[in-house]
Amino acid sequence: MNDDRLEQQLAFIIEIDKLKRVLRQTLLADESRQENSAEHSWHLALMAGLLAEYAPAGTDVGRAVRMVLVHDLVEIDAGDAFCYDPVAVQGKAEREEACADRLFGILPEDQSAELRELWDEFEAGTTPEARFANALDRLQPLLQNLNTRGGTWRMHGVPREQVLKRMQPIREAMPELWPAVERALERAAGEGWLG
Amino acid sequence: MNDDRLEQQLAFIIEIDKLKRVLRQTLLADESRQENSAEHSWHLALMAGLLAEYAPAGTDVGRAVRMVLVHDLVEIDAGDAFCYDPVAVQGKAEREEACADRLFGILPEDQSAELRELWDEFEAGTTPEARFANALDRLQPLLQNLNTRGGTWRMHGVPREQVLKRMQPIREAMPELWPAVERALERAAGEGWLG
Repeated sequence: MNDDRLEQQLAFIIEIDKLKRVLRQTLLADESRQENSAEHSWHLALMAGLLAEYAPAGTDVGRAVRMVLVHDLVEIDAGDAFCYDPVAVQGKAEREEACADRLFGILPEDQSAELRELWDEFEAGTTPEARFANALDRLQPLLQNLNTRGGTWRMHGVPREQVLKRMQPIREAMPELWPAVERALERAAGEGWLG
Repeated sequence: MNDDRLEQQLAFIIEIDKLKRVLRQTLLADESRQENSAEHSWHLALMAGLLAEYAPAGTDVGRAVRMVLVHDLVEIDAGDAFCYDPVAVQGKAEREEACADRLFGILPEDQSAELRELWDEFEAGTTPEARFANALDRLQPLLQNLNTRGGTWRMHGVPREQVLKRMQPIREAMPELWPAVERALERAAGEGWLG
């Protein structure tokens, strides 16, 4: 038993508590408040298990779960950039890289490398697990918006074509879900929730 | 592709958004507010991966992760009962059973059975995965309290012996961590954080 190792692990566990204070634009389904990135990550992890049957061939679902659990950790320093705001997304990659260096550096080297690899893989978006994880990361706010009378689309007047473009990772990684996404956006347009 | 099946899955995914509104007694590490059960579950899932090396022999860590992700879902109807409040914990089992029936019943039968099994296993606390998950569920609020000047112990005047008793699942499932827990409670007592 290496006390230093345990201390590093516990220090990291307390440090990541900060993700609970990073707010996203997305609203909770009862519209009471904005969602934070920790509870969003929990939601994605459960979705990964429940929607595994639609994942790309060869997806290691356990790895996809670990990936969504860590995918937003870099927002602890970098914050959550609203995806439809071109100003907010400027410099996002650099801010997130710097946070990854600092944050994962708290952990013992082997675990630091493991989490960094998971995050890099998510960002690259090419493996089956990363494609699945990215699709879930688009699907969850879509579901929240559909259940909050358009939510962030309505609040920011986001046009349908922009949402459709943003949702392409779903079409690509989980094609079986695409007809449902199209129907949902059809309905959202009809309700006047899109810009 | 079975549209009913997908609809049941998506309905469940939206329903569990409610866990984000179930508040626990535990405070965030910056003491800004109470923690909710969804972000708490995310924290446990990450901890399961990071502390896997201390888990009981034979633990399937992926299963433990799935277990902690679902372990508090029944609080959606039943609420979170503060563990040191004897009145709040009365009737807890019945309320949670009723919620499990309703909530898991939203899902397709196979997935309903799978989640129910994970939750029952967590509650029984006998498999390596359940012992590990239960130990994490004790360790996380311990860490939060240590980082919030005693947090809920201080607020409710919980005596050291009661905390030690509550932490026994850690001693049993992760004995390597026990000396650190004892040292931490020693320190907490010295700081006057315990009742």
